[in-house]
Formats: sequence, C-alpha cells, structure tokens
Amino acid sequence: MEAAFAAYSEGRAVVPPVGELLFEDPPGDAHIKYGYVRGGEHFLVKVASGFYKNPEIGMPSSNGLMLLFDQRTGMPKAVLLDDGLLTDVRTAAAGAAAAKHLARSRVERIGIVGAGIQARLQLEHVARAISCRSALVWGRNRERARRMVEDLRQSNLDIELADSVSELAAKCEVIVTTTPSGTPLLSRECARPGMLIIAVGSDTPEKQELDVGVLAMADLVVADSKAQCLTRGEIHHAIGAGVIDESDIVEIGDIIRGVHVGRGSNDEIIVVDLTGVAVQDIFIAVAVLRALA
Amino acid sequence: MEAAFAAYSEGRAVVPPVGELLFEDPPGDAHIKYGYVRGGEHFLVKVASGFYKNPEIGMPSSNGLMLLFDQRTGMPKAVLLDDGLLTDVRTAAAGAAAAKHLARSRVERIGIVGAGIQARLQLEHVARAISCRSALVWGRNRERARRMVEDLRQSNLDIELADSVSELAAKCEVIVTTTPSGTPLLSRECARPGMLIIAVGSDTPEKQELDVGVLAMADLVVADSKAQCLTRGEIHHAIGAGVIDESDIVEIGDIIRGVHVGRGSNDEIIVVDLTGVAVQDIFIAVAVLRALA
Repeated sequence: MEAAFAAYSEGRAVVPPVGELLFEDPPGDAHIKYGYVRGGEHFLVKVASGFYKNPEIGMPSSNGLMLLFDQRTGMPKAVLLDDGLLTDVRTAAAGAAAAKHLARSRVERIGIVGAGIQARLQLEHVARAISCRSALVWGRNRERARRMVEDLRQSNLDIELADSVSELAAKCEVIVTTTPSGTPLLSRECARPGMLIIAVGSDTPEKQELDVGVLAMADLVVADSKAQCLTRGEIHHAIGAGVIDESDIVEIGDIIRGVHVGRGSNDEIIVVDLTGVAVQDIFIAVAVLRALA
Repeated sequence: MEAAFAAYSEGRAVVPPVGELLFEDPPGDAHIKYGYVRGGEHFLVKVASGFYKNPEIGMPSSNGLMLLFDQRTGMPKAVLLDDGLLTDVRTAAAGAAAAKHLARSRVERIGIVGAGIQARLQLEHVARAISCRSALVWGRNRERARRMVEDLRQSNLDIELADSVSELAAKCEVIVTTTPSGTPLLSRECARPGMLIIAVGSDTPEKQELDVGVLAMADLVVADSKAQCLTRGEIHHAIGAGVIDESDIVEIGDIIRGVHVGRGSNDEIIVVDLTGVAVQDIFIAVAVLRALA
C-alpha cells in the first residue's frame, strides 16, 4: 500500500472515473473500477457489487472480483474471485500504512470504532504495523462489539470493550473509525495532543464519522486522494463547513515518498481520511498474482 | 440480435458510456463496456483490448473477455474467455438481422467488401439469413480476397472474386462492407434501386466506408443506435456533410419490433449503419451461458 500511495501521488497511476450500474428491483449497485500504473506489468478491472437484500436469502450483500491483464499485450492474466476480500484487506493495509508513517513514536493503545469485518482487519493490521498489542473497541451495536472483543482475545491481543467513544478517545493514541455512520461519532473533544485518527468508514458524500471540529483541531490533515476527498469522506464535510481549506490537505503518498513532512512532533494531532482509491486494488491484485506465480 | 436491438430501441437496455484505458508503450487500448437489460437475469462487463504491435510477437492484436453477473444478487455467474470471438459473431449476427428485415424479397447475389474475419462471418450469417448462396468478394488486398474466395468455395457457396467495387455493386443486391477503411470505398454511383447496403466496418468517428452520396441516395437510413451513430460511423459523416438529417434516421430495433416501417418496396435503397452496441454483447453472452447450462 505504501508503494501504491506513492505511485498515486507521483502521478503514475492512470485511474479513470468509476463506472456504475444501478439496479432497482431488488435494489443494488455495481461499480466498475479500472486503471494501471505506468511502467507496471498489468492493468486492472475490478467489479464490486452491493445488493443489500442478499442477507435475506442467506447471501453476503457484497460481491466482487478483480481481473488482471498484461499492460503490454492486453492478454487476460488472472481472474481473482475474491468475493470482496481483497478490497477489505487493502483497506486495512492502508490504515496500517497510515499508522506506520503518522503515529506518535509511542502508542499505548489502539482504539477501534466499529465492530464489523473492517474493524477486525484494521486492528490486526495496525497493531502489527506499530507493534502495539493493547486495544479498546467501541461499537454502536454493543453486543457485536463484545463478540469482537471476545474473538480477538484469542489472538494474543490485550483488548477491552469501551463504554463510550469518549473513554476510547481518552485512553488511545491511535483511533481507527470503521463504520458506515451517517452522523459524526467522534466529537471535537475527542481530539487530544499526540493523537492519530484514521477514518476509513466514510466513502460516500453522505457518510461521516468525525465531527468537523476534529479536523479543525488537527495539525495535519491527510488524504489518500486529494481529488477524491474533495467530494466524499470526512475532508469534504470539513471543507464544506469552512473549518479547513483545500490547501491544508496533504496526500499520504507524498508523505510516504518524502516530498511532504509527516508528523512534526509527538504532540501533533493528525487526521487521515481514507476513501479508497483504485491504485490500492491494482497493487493488491498484482501482489496476489505474484504470490501465486 | 433481433431481441437485442428491440430491447435497446424500447429503452430497456441500461448501457452507460464506455470506459477506456489508453497505453503508450507499446501503443494499445482497452475498452470496458457494461450494462444490462431491465427485467433480464444478468448484467455484463466486457473488456476488449487492441494492441496493434502484438502480431510482431506472434500474438493477435485483439483480446477480450466477458463477465456475467446475477442482476438480482451481484454474484459472478460466468467468465467467458472468448478472445473477442463473441464480438465478431454478434457483429455478424447483427448484419444477418439487418439483411433478414431489410433486403428485397429476391436477392441474386451478396457482395462482400473486405476479406478479413468479419467479411467471412458476415457472408456466412447473411447468406443463411436470406437463403442466398451466391456471392462476390472484393478486398483492398486482392491476394487476401482471393484466399477468402478459395476457402469459402469449400462451404457450398457460389462465390467469385470481383475486379472492382463497381462490378460488385452492379451485380449484388445486398452489400456488406467490413473494412476499417478511412476513405470511402463505395461511391454514390454504386447505390442502385432495390439495394441494401450494410456498413459494419466503421465504428469510430474517423473510419468511413461509404461516400456520403450513398446515404443521400437512400430511401431509408437505419442505425443500430441513433445516439451512437450521431458521433461515429457512416451516418455521422453524412449528417456532418448535410446530406441527411438526424430526423431521417430509424433504429433497426424499432423496425424489428414493428413501431417503424422497414422496406416499403423492392426498389428502395436502404443503408444500415452498424457501429456496435453493448446490448448485443449482453444478449450473446447470455445466449452462450444458456447454451452451456
């Protein structure tokens, strides 16, 4: 993911606008993403669908597959029938990359907001990236959050359930928010010196996990894609509210490749907004293909 | 293909704009087409690429595959690794549908302009559609056209090589043009009463097989997609030259489903411009899936 973001911010990724198909009965959507990295070996076409009534018939709502083609001949090279798993993993790997580059030098505890698949994957990946084995979890559905805590206790993590987001914010230096919430879960008061807040749940113009005041408090606001964060995710809400300016935004790829400074001190508050870019799909699909070859 | 064009003209096909990836070194392109027919079972994603230096390394320049997904759940149903064959066949089947609905009642001879894969497929499909076993072939590459004539003599066709397009036009009542020519091959003088001219080669804004005078002479000008023919193919050249008007254009799907009259008499000149629409891909992929099921 570090290489993916660096390639993106360097302008080496060719990623046209996402194609979309909408369905009415039953309601659903399919997104077709495609692109390549100049100088790479492959181009990618990814199809991801969401049919929200699938669980009623015992099927997952999300589906997807990735196709890789040879960038020099157009020959199909791989069909990865991953059911959306690779998208989940690349999103978690992006959180880990952000934590690795932007967390303060010493992190006592990781806070996870949310209790779904992405919450679990973020905890696993971020914990490994910054070598921190303590975590607090808070979820809007308390029972689901409790199950997550119990499950993950098996995996050598020192993990507890938080009673509130405020408790989580008071005790953690890295917080990852992973919900599809439409109303802010973290208030301005949650932002404490030294904190790194990574928002991965909001990937549409409507969703919002952070109060715009959290971004207003930040010393540094980081996007995966500046262009995309102007129209969706946390940053676009904060710019819309006038509390931050477009020129304040730094791309994580520019920090990774060293053309922009990351964390300046252990006291800075940093917010990272990850909305998901197709270059991540390209890199994870190619990595899988190489591992299989 | 008849059902495909009817569904398209009826407005039942959902076919967003085509996605495109361009490559520079080596030069190539990939087109991503996707869509579905409302009330159908599937949605389609098709990837078709052209890498024009592939033959230098012993590979075909065109490549492609089609993916079918369940329209009610998003589940992947089929990956058709057809190397572009299905696109060739659906294009030939479209020519056959045009001939079936728009040729005069008696056709002595079919004329084919071009000597490539599409020329052979058109002859095979059109001959079957109108039960005519006599054909003349003219190709810009005479040697290639001669080989085509020799090959197809094996298949119970009464087939000869024409010395010129004028000879072909003088002796045939149905002409199919199948070349990627950038300059018109059929002049105004080629258009004779009773003729049906089907142009399938031109699928970009630049390519042109028919002099605009041919369309000016026509009693009826038919498009596969009115919207698409305004920006590419023969019709857009003729409209650009001012010899026909947008309101003159009739969609073949409207003729097939009976909301517009087709041929009015055995003396009419009819020109059909087939630029290729994604709904054809949807129908042929679904037909293949059904045949395999």
